[in-house]
Amino acid sequence: MKVINHQFRLAARPLGMPKRSDWQYVEEPVGEPADGELLIQVQFISLDPAMRGWMNDVRSYIAPVAIGEVMRAGAVGRVIASRHPGFSVGDHVIGTLGVQEYALSSGKGVRKVDPELVPLPVYLGTLGAPGMTAYFGLLDVGKPVEGQTVVVSGAAGAVGTVVGQIARIKGCRAIGIAGGPDKCRFLTEELGFDGAIDYKNEDVKQALKQHCPQGIDVYFDNVGGDILDAALARLARGARVVVCGAISQYNNASPVKGPSNYLSLLINRASMTGMVVFDYAPRYGQAGLEMAGWMAAGRLKSREHIVEGFDTFPETLLKLFAGENIGKLVLAVKHPA
Amino acid sequence: MKVINHQFRLAARPLGMPKRSDWQYVEEPVGEPADGELLIQVQFISLDPAMRGWMNDVRSYIAPVAIGEVMRAGAVGRVIASRHPGFSVGDHVIGTLGVQEYALSSGKGVRKVDPELVPLPVYLGTLGAPGMTAYFGLLDVGKPVEGQTVVVSGAAGAVGTVVGQIARIKGCRAIGIAGGPDKCRFLTEELGFDGAIDYKNEDVKQALKQHCPQGIDVYFDNVGGDILDAALARLARGARVVVCGAISQYNNASPVKGPSNYLSLLINRASMTGMVVFDYAPRYGQAGLEMAGWMAAGRLKSREHIVEGFDTFPETLLKLFAGENIGKLVLAVKHPA
Repeated sequence: MKVINHQFRLAARPLGMPKRSDWQYVEEPVGEPADGELLIQVQFISLDPAMRGWMNDVRSYIAPVAIGEVMRAGAVGRVIASRHPGFSVGDHVIGTLGVQEYALSSGKGVRKVDPELVPLPVYLGTLGAPGMTAYFGLLDVGKPVEGQTVVVSGAAGAVGTVVGQIARIKGCRAIGIAGGPDKCRFLTEELGFDGAIDYKNEDVKQALKQHCPQGIDVYFDNVGGDILDAALARLARGARVVVCGAISQYNNASPVKGPSNYLSLLINRASMTGMVVFDYAPRYGQAGLEMAGWMAAGRLKSREHIVEGFDTFPETLLKLFAGENIGKLVLAVKHPA
Repeated sequence: MKVINHQFRLAARPLGMPKRSDWQYVEEPVGEPADGELLIQVQFISLDPAMRGWMNDVRSYIAPVAIGEVMRAGAVGRVIASRHPGFSVGDHVIGTLGVQEYALSSGKGVRKVDPELVPLPVYLGTLGAPGMTAYFGLLDVGKPVEGQTVVVSGAAGAVGTVVGQIARIKGCRAIGIAGGPDKCRFLTEELGFDGAIDYKNEDVKQALKQHCPQGIDVYFDNVGGDILDAALARLARGARVVVCGAISQYNNASPVKGPSNYLSLLINRASMTGMVVFDYAPRYGQAGLEMAGWMAAGRLKSREHIVEGFDTFPETLLKLFAGENIGKLVLAVKHPA
C-alpha cells in the first residue's frame, strides 16, 4: 500500500487576513504505522476562528503552530491501518489530526466516534469543541437563571447556535446577533431564538434596547469590537459577560479595539470572564451525553456548513471571517472509493 | 442665632476638567432646625474621584447632581442645634452633607462618630467609603489567597493605600502603582508594600514583569487607561481584576479608552468585575470594627491629605486628577471659635 498524503503547512505568519501564500501545500507519501500507531484517512476537517490565533507567534492558551508545521485542526476520519491495540481498521475517530488527508497517530488524544448515532461532522460541531464551548461557557461562566435574557454574538456560528438553544432549554430568552437577514431568519424560525439582530442592517445598540427592555443578564461574546461595546452599554445589574472570542479582531493589523464601555461593569456590578474550552475536558463526556439527549428530543438542532475539496482550505477558512458560514464550517475531504 | 452658610452648587456640567465657572458659590442664611431636624457645622469634607462622575448627566450607579444643587459629598461635622431625638448638640456626625459649611438634616443617613477613637478625617478615609471600597473590593471581589500577588493602581490614594495594606495583612505580596518617587517611597517605606512602580518614570509593563514574575493574581484598578492595559498583559491564570474606578478617564472629552488587552481575560481564564461600595453598606459595621482593630494593632496606617479653606474647593478637588494628594484628600472647613 502506497498512500500519498496532502497537507497544508504554515509557510508564513500572516499579517491581517491569511493569504494562500501563507500556506505550503505539501504532497508526500505516508509511512506504514509503526508498532502502537494507527493510520487515519481524514474525512472532515474542522475550521474554527481560533485557528487564526494559532498562526500568530504570541503567548496564548496554546502554543502557536510553528512555521513548516502541518496546520493544527480537529478532524474526524476512518482508521485504515492499525498496529494500536485500541483501534481497528474501519473505526471512526476524532482528534487533532491537522489539515491533511491522512494522519499517522500514536492514538494520543484520539477517540472513537459512532457514525450511526449522529453524522460525523456533528462531532466537530455541536458534539465537538464548539458545542462544548457553548455548553460550559454559557452554563458554567454565564450562569443563566430561568427567565433571564441571554444575548449571543456570532449567533449563527457553530458556538452561537448552540448557546442560544441551550439558553432556551434553560428557560431564558435568547437573542442572537448575526450578519444578514438569512442568518437572522434561521435563528428565529429554525432554532427558536426569541429574537435576532442583523448587525449589518440594524443599529445594534438600538436593537438591543428593543429586544432587552430589562437589560442583558448574560452576554456571550464571540466577536468583540463594536458589538461588544453595544452589549456592554445594555447590561443588567449583576450581568455576566462571557469572553469566548473576538472574531472581528483576529485579522487586525492594528491593535485590538478595547471595549470603550467597560466601565458599565462597574455601574452594573457586572463581570466579564474569559474561558477556554479545553479546561472542561474532564466533563466533555457528561456534557456530550446531555446534548445528545437534547438532540434526540428535537430540542437542540445541529447545523453544519460543509465545503467539499481539501485544496480549497485556504479560501474556505476565510469564510469564517467573511461571515459566510451558517453553523459549523467543515471541510470535507474526498477520497477515491 | 443667625448662621450664614456658604455652599458650592453645580452651575454647569464640565467638559473635561471642572473649572471654577462650573460652580456657583452661594452665601445664604441657614434656617433653624424644624421638629425632627438637626443643624450640623461641617468640619471636614471628603473629596473623591467619584464626584467627577456625579457631575455628568449620565445614567450611572447613582443619580447625577442636578444643576443648581449643592455638590454631593460625604462630610463630618458637629451638631450645633438639634430637634431630633437621636442627636444632641456637641455630637460628631458623618453623612452625605454636601459641599457646604452648614447642613440642615433630617438625620437620614447621618450617624454619630467618636472623635476620641480616631481623628475625624479618618472617618472619611480609611474608616469611610474609601476604606470600605478597599476592604470589600479586595476581599469580596478580588478574593486574594495567601501567597498571591496583588497589584493596585492609584496606590497612594485613599483606596489604594488600604488595598495594599489589607493585601499584606492577608499574606499576599502587595505591589503599588503610583506617580512619582515620593509616593513610591511612601508605599514601600511607610506602608510596607513589597514593591512600588512609578508610572511617571518607569515603563509599567516592564516593571510589572520584574515585580510579578509569576503574574498578577489580583489587580485592583483605580485608574483605567494604559495602566489597566499593562496589568492585563501580565495576568496570572485565573486572575481577578477589580474595576473600582478609572480616574485617568474621568475628565476625557473623548470616549473612554477601552482596554485593548482585554483578551488576556480569555487566555488566562481571568475575570474583570465591577463594584460599587454602597452595595456593602449592611456590612460596613463589621468591616469598620475589623479595620479599627488593625489600626489599633499598628497593621493598618491611615493617611490623610488635609487642605484648609472651604473656598479652595474647586481647585482642591483637581488635586485628585493631578495626582497631587497622598492618602485621603480632605477639605477642612474653618469656623470662628
